[in-house]
Amino acid sequence: MAIAIIGTGITKFGELWDKNWEDLVLESSTEAVKNANIEFEDINSCYVGNMNLSRFEGQDHIAPRITEILGINKVIRTEAACASSSIALKLASDEIELSSFKGENKIALVVGFEKMTDRIVGTTTGILAGASHFDTEIINGATFPGLYALLAARYLHETEATEEDLHAVGIKNHKNGILNEKAMFRKEINLEDFKGDIAKPLKLFDCSPISDGSASLVLTTEKYAKELGVEFVKLENIEISTSSISLAKRPDLLILDSAKRAAESAYKKADINPKNIDLIEVHDCFTINEILCLEAAGFAKRGKGYEIIRSLLPYENINKREAPVPYMVDGREVFVNTSGGLKAKGHPVGATGVAQVVEVVNQLLGRCGKRNVNPEIGATLNIGGTGGTATFSVLRR
Amino acid sequence: MAIAIIGTGITKFGELWDKNWEDLVLESSTEAVKNANIEFEDINSCYVGNMNLSRFEGQDHIAPRITEILGINKVIRTEAACASSSIALKLASDEIELSSFKGENKIALVVGFEKMTDRIVGTTTGILAGASHFDTEIINGATFPGLYALLAARYLHETEATEEDLHAVGIKNHKNGILNEKAMFRKEINLEDFKGDIAKPLKLFDCSPISDGSASLVLTTEKYAKELGVEFVKLENIEISTSSISLAKRPDLLILDSAKRAAESAYKKADINPKNIDLIEVHDCFTINEILCLEAAGFAKRGKGYEIIRSLLPYENINKREAPVPYMVDGREVFVNTSGGLKAKGHPVGATGVAQVVEVVNQLLGRCGKRNVNPEIGATLNIGGTGGTATFSVLRR
Repeated sequence: MAIAIIGTGITKFGELWDKNWEDLVLESSTEAVKNANIEFEDINSCYVGNMNLSRFEGQDHIAPRITEILGINKVIRTEAACASSSIALKLASDEIELSSFKGENKIALVVGFEKMTDRIVGTTTGILAGASHFDTEIINGATFPGLYALLAARYLHETEATEEDLHAVGIKNHKNGILNEKAMFRKEINLEDFKGDIAKPLKLFDCSPISDGSASLVLTTEKYAKELGVEFVKLENIEISTSSISLAKRPDLLILDSAKRAAESAYKKADINPKNIDLIEVHDCFTINEILCLEAAGFAKRGKGYEIIRSLLPYENINKREAPVPYMVDGREVFVNTSGGLKAKGHPVGATGVAQVVEVVNQLLGRCGKRNVNPEIGATLNIGGTGGTATFSVLRR
Repeated sequence: MAIAIIGTGITKFGELWDKNWEDLVLESSTEAVKNANIEFEDINSCYVGNMNLSRFEGQDHIAPRITEILGINKVIRTEAACASSSIALKLASDEIELSSFKGENKIALVVGFEKMTDRIVGTTTGILAGASHFDTEIINGATFPGLYALLAARYLHETEATEEDLHAVGIKNHKNGILNEKAMFRKEINLEDFKGDIAKPLKLFDCSPISDGSASLVLTTEKYAKELGVEFVKLENIEISTSSISLAKRPDLLILDSAKRAAESAYKKADINPKNIDLIEVHDCFTINEILCLEAAGFAKRGKGYEIIRSLLPYENINKREAPVPYMVDGREVFVNTSGGLKAKGHPVGATGVAQVVEVVNQLLGRCGKRNVNPEIGATLNIGGTGGTATFSVLRR
């Protein structure tokens, strides 16, 4: 049974020095509630995804703080690193589905947020590293740029892909981001901008930025959405899978096995396959990961995702094209990260899962202005860590 | 519809220097799976509650680490300070109920754990303070002993209760703990042991200890539990409520309004009232809170809970009685914290909610040996922070 998403809200992503995290949560949630045409009092429960307010702001026990901000008396917090808010969405969707079986018409708010530019306990890269395996990765000094560099290096070693194929992902996503007024970066980048290793072979522009931001969704049953008479998108399903957190225990470094399982399960339950997907927001925390995500989502076989990127060749011309720039997959246009992706839109880690869904919902409802690509079916692939957690959602008009 | 709890497991609580958190999770979960008479492969999903592995052990993104330990490919982590694992139980119960409507027979594992004696980022009291309001409480140096001292001072000011009434809670719970082989403290304490203020009027023995520990439950549908032919307890329901996190925003300092709402909702759904409860595990993180919890759970009116404690008078004789020691409430025996409570059993914060349920389930199944009190209906009241989060569960044979 499909769940109805009746409201979306998202703040601008970026270094938001003049706002605190509460401002952001209130802003995205107020927008979502407003365009769902409901009031905060109508909401039965709120699920909030956040990675580490504890170390960014000294605050654990987020749920009752949300109660203070939004006045909702049932708030639940989830954490799964950069997939935190997709887990919140899954749980909200379960509660709505359960309420449907019980003949109730519950309404749930889902919020994802992160305020990463203030940090009171440690460095941002150090805090983020907490999403990898402490005893074998963190303790040896691994950071996420380092871990993804390892995946990128392996990918370049095993396949015919080149560093330029990675960069092309970043160029395309920056181009798309220009049309997104909520994106952190709204300027073109070019191949010659990819200079200086962050972690070989990844350059600065292969990495998504540290960002602040919040995104919100309002969910209810399809039946109630119709009664309310609001426009909505159907969340066909959202599937979760967890795998080993440490790369050392991954049977194949180039397969995001959690993402593959989540995608296959979601396709099966929605009775679709990758050929039905017009638009997908994937987790390009580093450019290599857009490629790995495309493979996990079934758009290409293992080690062949870079061939999709090459549909953008010649890369010098990407910025001459009209945005959003699609890939060609088996002779068909597929839009990936019309929002600008994590790379250009920004990556406030706890917000990202919900923000991906906000983009797809708004695309399906034709609310994206110049960047609208009129999809019938959209999807999101959200990753925690290096793939320890993955979620895959299917959304339909 | 009731959910069946078919397995329970709990480690010894204490300063467990020779075990790491993974050992604890594995130990309690293996015990739960074993007495549910299933295998880990039979489990569909795992919900894990933990407050702050991030700052105690440097590890966020707990879910995929649990996947590595237990081999379960759908793991979800929740956080609500000291109520973290009750939230996990609620979500697992929702999933099982949903699976029942769908005619599936899912099995879920619920784990709560905390390893508090290792701490890599800050002090234990500082880490725990994260469960209070950062901007008004933490930043001004408040700690949990301090915040609960404030509640205790107000209680003693507004009512005729005395410090000795608080101490009697601790004496009773230590007495009960002697019979619990998993308890951290298994020795009697007496009135004269309550010396030296921790935070006026709370003495050392008014405070629960810093502890390590893990507790686990296995849940499935009642129908499937019967098919499996295992003994089980019915989880009638578990209700969650959140309130203001900061004491300054609480309309009445002496009312745990979240707990009151959760209890009232749980009673209503289970069609019972406090008079039906034979045994309740409440959140005695500080002795004052056992009194506030008894009031919130409806055993006494606001400001009158201390009269229940006085059913133990003369306090000098508590240790001469046979454990577990009941209170007399309206002429009826009510057992509170037969496990020894947080005070004597220990309080590994993320484990506590599930540990409370483990005690009640084992009491209902007659598995508590000498401390068994043969209840028909039991309950748990778990608190996060100073009442920002509360959960109330009703369990029945």
